[in-house]
Amino acid sequence: MIPRVVIVGGGFAGLYAARRFSRSNVKVTLVDRQNYHLFQPLLYQVATAGLSPGDIATPIRSLVARQSNVEVRMGDVTGVDLKNRRVTLADGVLDYDFLILATGVRHSYFGRDEWERFAPGLKTLDDALELRRRVLTAFEDAEKEPDEKKREAILTFVIVGAGPTGVELAGAIAELSKFTVADDYRRFDPRKSKVLLMEGGDRVLAAFDPALSAKALESLKKLGVDVRLNTRVTNVDAGGVDLGDERIAAHTVLWAAGVAASPISKSLGVELDRSGRVKVQSDLSIPGFPTAYVVGDLACVTQPDGTTVPGLAPAAIQEGEHAADNIMAAALGNPTEPFSYLDKGIMATVGRASGIAQSGPLRLSGFLGWCAWLFIHILYLIGFRNRLLVMIQWAWAWFTFGRSARLITGLTPPPSRHEAKLETAEAVRR
Amino acid sequence: MIPRVVIVGGGFAGLYAARRFSRSNVKVTLVDRQNYHLFQPLLYQVATAGLSPGDIATPIRSLVARQSNVEVRMGDVTGVDLKNRRVTLADGVLDYDFLILATGVRHSYFGRDEWERFAPGLKTLDDALELRRRVLTAFEDAEKEPDEKKREAILTFVIVGAGPTGVELAGAIAELSKFTVADDYRRFDPRKSKVLLMEGGDRVLAAFDPALSAKALESLKKLGVDVRLNTRVTNVDAGGVDLGDERIAAHTVLWAAGVAASPISKSLGVELDRSGRVKVQSDLSIPGFPTAYVVGDLACVTQPDGTTVPGLAPAAIQEGEHAADNIMAAALGNPTEPFSYLDKGIMATVGRASGIAQSGPLRLSGFLGWCAWLFIHILYLIGFRNRLLVMIQWAWAWFTFGRSARLITGLTPPPSRHEAKLETAEAVRR
Repeated sequence: MIPRVVIVGGGFAGLYAARRFSRSNVKVTLVDRQNYHLFQPLLYQVATAGLSPGDIATPIRSLVARQSNVEVRMGDVTGVDLKNRRVTLADGVLDYDFLILATGVRHSYFGRDEWERFAPGLKTLDDALELRRRVLTAFEDAEKEPDEKKREAILTFVIVGAGPTGVELAGAIAELSKFTVADDYRRFDPRKSKVLLMEGGDRVLAAFDPALSAKALESLKKLGVDVRLNTRVTNVDAGGVDLGDERIAAHTVLWAAGVAASPISKSLGVELDRSGRVKVQSDLSIPGFPTAYVVGDLACVTQPDGTTVPGLAPAAIQEGEHAADNIMAAALGNPTEPFSYLDKGIMATVGRASGIAQSGPLRLSGFLGWCAWLFIHILYLIGFRNRLLVMIQWAWAWFTFGRSARLITGLTPPPSRHEAKLETAEAVRR
Repeated sequence: MIPRVVIVGGGFAGLYAARRFSRSNVKVTLVDRQNYHLFQPLLYQVATAGLSPGDIATPIRSLVARQSNVEVRMGDVTGVDLKNRRVTLADGVLDYDFLILATGVRHSYFGRDEWERFAPGLKTLDDALELRRRVLTAFEDAEKEPDEKKREAILTFVIVGAGPTGVELAGAIAELSKFTVADDYRRFDPRKSKVLLMEGGDRVLAAFDPALSAKALESLKKLGVDVRLNTRVTNVDAGGVDLGDERIAAHTVLWAAGVAASPISKSLGVELDRSGRVKVQSDLSIPGFPTAYVVGDLACVTQPDGTTVPGLAPAAIQEGEHAADNIMAAALGNPTEPFSYLDKGIMATVGRASGIAQSGPLRLSGFLGWCAWLFIHILYLIGFRNRLLVMIQWAWAWFTFGRSARLITGLTPPPSRHEAKLETAEAVRR
């Protein structure tokens, strides 16, 4: 019997796990809600109109088309039955011999989920298009607003959370307003937009060396970003945010804070950490279920020194490949190996020519940090064509201060069509 | 007093009119519902995953950023009061001295508007993304469908109307299934998809020379498209289409037939043709309202020989520029000039390396026709960057049979967010 492996999630962890099975004698089914793999580190570029969705997303099918032992299934996983080794989808079931769960995380609103509608997060391509719509629409609204005070609120962008996503969003929106659209409007000056970055901790990019955090803060300030450290958002509503007693009137609030595991983890009935991530064993399998692995952001992997593996793309890739190796070993009756994380370093960018990077003893900032960031991201961007296109677009944008994807789409998704689609599906099923 | 010109519509006609006013002493307001100008001749490429939205759309603001006398306003025009020279928007009014109406046309369902939800048309970027979603989702659904007969219906694509859009869609979908996704699925053979092209008349691309129509028909057949001439669709529903007594079970039906003027024309209270287009005078102004011009697809322009100017991009550009010239003449107290259409020819493409083109006595077909089509379309594509990117993508797609933009987006537009957006707008207004 050829072992059946089900991989849930086509992000970095799931995709690299699937690829690892090439030339091995297992049958793999890769399930994802979307039909594409997303290069998430560049998602903020789509949200801020620097890149098009097609530049950072590739159909999963074409990424594994040559692996005849991998089948891709687009579907919504609604539950996992670890005891009976069965994954339930909205439209079917999949039985497995081995499971790899890699459904990732979303942002956490710290129990205030009602804030999401006012302050959307950035995890999916649809999120990014929604953020882009909100940011670009704000400028359009400002052009129509005669009242100066109201216009000020329209042109205030609040970003909550100063991790890499928050910092990159803040930098990109500041640049958008100060350079890209600076000459596009007649009734107000986009340069006067305000970008505020809220952080509960005492520095930005807390995962980095404090000296690099300070450099990043400097770059943000140079771009005119108002960074508020040690600041907790106490309320978010349609008109802005509250910081304790202070009220900030803002039309656009974006959320880049917290981590909450994808809801599937709760249905497993196993031990989770505070964020809902699955606490796995050293070989990445779930305690008590040696045939089920959890990898990527969804996994809480404790290292020998007591720290946990960070939620980064390189960690997800390593975990995915390691789980695949362990499954192949187990299928042959061999013992599994403990996972050990190889920390290659971390990096972030702040605007157009400034970044920070650290790897081992190496510390880079400013233009050099940005070059390192650019090189690594282009290198890892999946698919040669995308790499080339993104390079051209960036080169173009860099020299012209332009952002080409400034399109406000999704204004008129006629609900009747979505209904029609459902009815069609119904009719066909009948 | 500097004359105020209001242009409604940022398509070819409206945009080129606005550009014509550069260096002239008028104040122009260009109103469009969207924030981008769309290169509509390539819209079918977005619908069939060959190009990304950003490749064929450019923000209107950046196209006129250097013309300080042009103001762009994003807004929905709800009515035009020709007598009082006032344009009403959903969120304001604009008074004008001169008006240029260029809101274009949509498809006509011949009085059966309820068909639209089952058979969407292709006029906007959101339309194209919806078509792309439907076509790509069909293949995903087929992979999940065990019943062969049902799968056949899922893999049947019906296109209604064999004008340029219908022919280009049919050719592109046939290629998509026969080459691009041919190896992506494991449970069915995408090559077995059926593409049907329905046409009420007795040949495809009726605007062309009959010999060229025949060549295009041949190319379509070579791609495996089932072309049905002299065929009238009598009903469309969720499960397929009826052609009189014949029933065709089809999951995906696309509409590319008929022409209906944008609804604004009805509110004018002036003479319209059967499609609702405004019958203009020889100088393109509305009879009885010498300061109001209608151009582009919305205008019914009768030529001295009794024929009407066709609804093509070059005609729209010429009309837009002509109306602008006449307004500048009138503003200086000079007489207006009659419009005369310079027919540069027409062209269409059928699949990957075949096209037809006619211009004056010149007739091209096959590979040469396709080269002509490619050259002209790249040449006219607005914005250097887009041209370069589109060329690279096409070259890449041509050599690899790939289509890069195969992304199914818009699956999860959380309605709560759209509501939140409206509430935000409300709150800010308050």
